[in-house]
Amino acid sequence: MLSSVDDLFLDVLKDIYFAEKKILKTIPKLVRGATSPDLKAALTEHRHETEGQIERLQQVFEHLGKPARAKTCEAINGLFEEADELFEDTEAGPVRDAGIVACAQAVEHYEMARYGALIAWAKASKHGDIAKLLQETLDQEKKADALLNKLGTDKINAEALREAA
Amino acid sequence: MLSSVDDLFLDVLKDIYFAEKKILKTIPKLVRGATSPDLKAALTEHRHETEGQIERLQQVFEHLGKPARAKTCEAINGLFEEADELFEDTEAGPVRDAGIVACAQAVEHYEMARYGALIAWAKASKHGDIAKLLQETLDQEKKADALLNKLGTDKINAEALREAA
Repeated sequence: MLSSVDDLFLDVLKDIYFAEKKILKTIPKLVRGATSPDLKAALTEHRHETEGQIERLQQVFEHLGKPARAKTCEAINGLFEEADELFEDTEAGPVRDAGIVACAQAVEHYEMARYGALIAWAKASKHGDIAKLLQETLDQEKKADALLNKLGTDKINAEALREAA
Repeated sequence: MLSSVDDLFLDVLKDIYFAEKKILKTIPKLVRGATSPDLKAALTEHRHETEGQIERLQQVFEHLGKPARAKTCEAINGLFEEADELFEDTEAGPVRDAGIVACAQAVEHYEMARYGALIAWAKASKHGDIAKLLQETLDQEKKADALLNKLGTDKINAEALREAA
């Protein structure tokens, strides 16, 4: 049973640890399925960031004196099932790329929500060091989302529209 | 097959239509499981907003001359599975309430990502009227997320910490 904020924190920490490891494993598939060199580069860069984010989570587990354990995160599994559907329903090209941007942004938003909750609980519990570590990751997620947004708006959506014309 | 931005738009529109209907159906369960009167009120208010958001989606289908159809959204199913787990793992009280706030914020973030993508595609396709309708909903989702954030930070997390002390 989860009977304290600490329990809840650890539970969500395990959830996002699962999610980050799944993201690390799944990004290469998105890169292979993408066509736009800019999108491939953005995803590859985010995979690199994800490695650092996983290390930061391991540091948080260490701070708490707990083993780093993952707990199945049904939300991230659902999000990547939607990416699988996109790959089944599209051929490689600009339309699929536009869909990949949207899927990746949905993943970023899930992470933003989870890190936001963890930071709020860490601050409430006066774990300033942990809040600071997680804030670094949250800032990266927000930046990654903004980059994907710009890439979609400035480039990929226009290419997808031309493709179908 | 999805071979144009219009196809992609319609596909994600059906996905978020499913998600909104699921949210409408699931909020009462969250309200029953919550203890804080403020949280119950915020969730109930958002359920009311969700009704309007569903109507707006039906207007978008109508604009496009398409029947309003839902398509199973694995992401929202996964998000609500996490809420089910929270209910299994906690007793009614402030700790569960803190978890409900986090779950509801994850749902808001999913919606923000989806509406963000739909608006970008509607604008790229010069469907200004549709973009405007969806922007109204996106603004509501952002406001609901900010309200939940404030409620968690100002009140519920502190109550949850006191509970365990």
